[in-house]
Amino acid sequence: MWLKVSCELVFDIEIPTPFILMLRPRSGAQQWVAREIYKIEPNLQAYEYTDTFGNLCQRVLAPAGQFKVYTEADVKTAEFIDVDPGAPFIDIQNLPDAMLNYLLPSRYCESDRFSDLANSITTNQLPGYDQVAAIESWLRDTISYIPGSSDFAISAIEVNYRQSGVCRDLAHLGIALCRSLSIPARLVVGYLHNLQPMDMHAWFEAYVGGRWYIFDATQTEHKGGYVSVGYGRDAADVPMFNQFGPSVFPLKQVITVVEFENGK
Amino acid sequence: MWLKVSCELVFDIEIPTPFILMLRPRSGAQQWVAREIYKIEPNLQAYEYTDTFGNLCQRVLAPAGQFKVYTEADVKTAEFIDVDPGAPFIDIQNLPDAMLNYLLPSRYCESDRFSDLANSITTNQLPGYDQVAAIESWLRDTISYIPGSSDFAISAIEVNYRQSGVCRDLAHLGIALCRSLSIPARLVVGYLHNLQPMDMHAWFEAYVGGRWYIFDATQTEHKGGYVSVGYGRDAADVPMFNQFGPSVFPLKQVITVVEFENGK
Amino acid sequence: MWLKVSCELVFDIEIPTPFILMLRPRSGAQQWVAREIYKIEPNLQAYEYTDTFGNLCQRVLAPAGQFKVYTEADVKTAEFIDVDPGAPFIDIQNLPDAMLNYLLPSRYCESDRFSDLANSITTNQLPGYDQVAAIESWLRDTISYIPGSSDFAISAIEVNYRQSGVCRDLAHLGIALCRSLSIPARLVVGYLHNLQPMDMHAWFEAYVGGRWYIFDATQTEHKGGYVSVGYGRDAADVPMFNQFGPSVFPLKQVITVVEFENGK
Amino acid sequence: MWLKVSCELVFDIEIPTPFILMLRPRSGAQQWVAREIYKIEPNLQAYEYTDTFGNLCQRVLAPAGQFKVYTEADVKTAEFIDVDPGAPFIDIQNLPDAMLNYLLPSRYCESDRFSDLANSITTNQLPGYDQVAAIESWLRDTISYIPGSSDFAISAIEVNYRQSGVCRDLAHLGIALCRSLSIPARLVVGYLHNLQPMDMHAWFEAYVGGRWYIFDATQTEHKGGYVSVGYGRDAADVPMFNQFGPSVFPLKQVITVVEFENGK
Repeated sequence: MWLKVSCELVFDIEIPTPFILMLRPRSGAQQWVAREIYKIEPNLQAYEYTDTFGNLCQRVLAPAGQFKVYTEADVKTAEFIDVDPGAPFIDIQNLPDAMLNYLLPSRYCESDRFSDLANSITTNQLPGYDQVAAIESWLRDTISYIPGSSDFAISAIEVNYRQSGVCRDLAHLGIALCRSLSIPARLVVGYLHNLQPMDMHAWFEAYVGGRWYIFDATQTEHKGGYVSVGYGRDAADVPMFNQFGPSVFPLKQVITVVEFENGK
Repeated sequence: MWLKVSCELVFDIEIPTPFILMLRPRSGAQQWVAREIYKIEPNLQAYEYTDTFGNLCQRVLAPAGQFKVYTEADVKTAEFIDVDPGAPFIDIQNLPDAMLNYLLPSRYCESDRFSDLANSITTNQLPGYDQVAAIESWLRDTISYIPGSSDFAISAIEVNYRQSGVCRDLAHLGIALCRSLSIPARLVVGYLHNLQPMDMHAWFEAYVGGRWYIFDATQTEHKGGYVSVGYGRDAADVPMFNQFGPSVFPLKQVITVVEFENGK
Repeated sequence: MWLKVSCELVFDIEIPTPFILMLRPRSGAQQWVAREIYKIEPNLQAYEYTDTFGNLCQRVLAPAGQFKVYTEADVKTAEFIDVDPGAPFIDIQNLPDAMLNYLLPSRYCESDRFSDLANSITTNQLPGYDQVAAIESWLRDTISYIPGSSDFAISAIEVNYRQSGVCRDLAHLGIALCRSLSIPARLVVGYLHNLQPMDMHAWFEAYVGGRWYIFDATQTEHKGGYVSVGYGRDAADVPMFNQFGPSVFPLKQVITVVEFENGK
Repeated sequence: MWLKVSCELVFDIEIPTPFILMLRPRSGAQQWVAREIYKIEPNLQAYEYTDTFGNLCQRVLAPAGQFKVYTEADVKTAEFIDVDPGAPFIDIQNLPDAMLNYLLPSRYCESDRFSDLANSITTNQLPGYDQVAAIESWLRDTISYIPGSSDFAISAIEVNYRQSGVCRDLAHLGIALCRSLSIPARLVVGYLHNLQPMDMHAWFEAYVGGRWYIFDATQTEHKGGYVSVGYGRDAADVPMFNQFGPSVFPLKQVITVVEFENGK
């Protein structure tokens, strides 16, 4: 399916503020970017680099006054996400080197503290995909999904204590549980078609059966329409924007995702 | 200045043919991509990766029949390229690790065979920028620049023997001469505003005084309007397209570069 | 100065257990490895790779029974660490891309929660080296350093709550404080000459004035004798060994550091 | 089998000369380095980095006078190299990204000029391993192997013209032939047990059937005893030493390879 996604951010800046933006989706195995717009106002010298996860990041020093970022992309993505019950757990000694990073605990995913819970959730599950599916179901049934933006990220321990959270929080807890079972897991930030209410979204991927699979405890169906913008160990690695100095919050944040016919 | 650049390639394919395309300009220190289109017809599963030079490469298996690629981008780039007579040679021991790669001989730049020529061209020049500028002048005066596409790339030794070549050939000889003086040099492929006749272009960059500078022996002025698409040691690393199996040549190749007013 | 360092680890393994070891020091800007031994018993197929931080990691599947690792190295390192009061804070927009990673919060360094404390500790300090030195002094004066190994790592928030910790804990709190001031900081694990009692050691480095400087709140003098084995955002990235499956603790862990005359 | 390998280089330097040495073998999938010595005299500040191929390179500025490098390593390596007739050609579209680099022509392997020869050598061979084996046989039968060091590297075209060469030359021609068939191929420099006469050695590897296989047209048996020190596209990437400024040749170069019993 083809999706036109967009993100508009408007800030009111008091003093010159360095930003690192992560708002340019990349073409990869799972999606193709056919058209793209990236506007910054005022018209600044921006500079792009690739981080260690392969994300494209834009560095810019926003001057005092109104600062506006607008990105838009036409992206081809799958109509249904892949599911593969029975896909096996990959033994640590057989994991590609690049996956080992996703087994470690991280800022918001204290996987070193979740062994007992993960084992109790996945009792009797086949190691691999089925364990992750059980974790996803458990999250859906146990942690109340409360859409809407939270002021700042909380960690898996805190999410589990509160028993509720935004999409990112559910993903963090899912990741911590997977890693505690030695399953590589990562956070993905991006867009989702028909998300209610529309906003940027976060979900997680787990590496089983030799590839990454999408899991999303906030949704009840395996429909697709996912457009990824950034990958990382958790939200610390994948901010839509990372801003330094006194905190600045967006005055306006408008996200849109619209399906369209290709060949228009 | 803002440039709208585009490249259209049309092939007639006899058997399914794997392609690696390098047609997506990246935002970086020297340019900003504000809008971009990348169309492939028929509508194939393409996959993008980053090569060791940081270039975005698109892998695709073109089926038999007509195969068409169209890319377009709005890019902000400098109106005049930087020149810096006197910028010093950087001693090998002080070069960043990432530059050492650009000192080695490569497929089309046999720098191991050009010491004598390079020394004779740069006699009495201050080591660094001035040496490269002398090489650029020598190329402009000595090697006839004959625009138009050549069937296949020839190496610096062959270029020097023929005393003529396309833009890529002059760049290759320039690179070989720089490297033989222990100055890191790399090939850049991209677009140039007002190039006559319009086509994809190639030039070279040399690392002196702690940064890369553009050199282009095909042009007589230091006007800007350069949009880079790929960087590499030489043309072997930076093909617009790399195609495997029986050779396929584009039926059609249309390049455009148009200046426009930003904020349109 | 020349140091001969060694680490012997002995485990009693119940079931085949995958290990990732990080016990091979690398030669780099700050140290030179002139001789090295790396023995694994029983004699297994080990495999080495480089992680995203540049550390050499050894992957091995330890069989049931006694598993022994012995590493030894002769390393040249500085007799005194560099200190540079007044070295300036580097503005975010001028930091090399590779440093940005070290500004983010991480598993054991919740820098997103330490702004107030960091500001109160560094009031009136010149931004940069002096801020970090003030943090180091504050750690030394405030957090009781209790050598000896802890069962598992605790995070900066927990360290600050307990007001005591092992070397790693003091480093984690130091890192969190630095990052909350937008100063890149990283954990280093390695050996230290004359450490009392002898053990593996951890300290932190901060990036100010355009380079990394060593800080170590567990020591009162700027003596050198540091041999680094691994770098990372925090202890999650830099385990001496990372082991998967049911927990295994070393039966024996012997660390030695001995100064010797070069040319022996 | 366990091998103790060593390399001693002695130079007489006239003016301070920057060197990049590539003399530290790495542990990897095919070998394990259990003990290692790396001595430089006089005792200089050396600095090590990892190049884009994963090789460990040592940068040093040799002062005027005698400059000596001595490296020694105990390495576990296979007694027989793997052979796998019938291992299939991997279609370009299925090659891992990291292999694409090894399909490109390079300084000493002008694969863009060898299609016809490669096809004639491999007529009737199954695509993949068998093609490479046919190339290896053809090299052994056609190109006279003349051990002994050559003053400078020559390219595959030159080797084919001369019909003779050192180990490196045969490997270069083998690589060029493989790549012209779209088989990834790379040069390896290292040690070989029982090489006659003893010296540093070079061979090539081809990627078929999903992994790298060793090929060596200078040897008639599939005996093992290979210790690799560096990998690259060709000899330009993998110099034992790369030296800048006026040429310096080793006064003395002593290579030894001795088998020993482990557990000594």
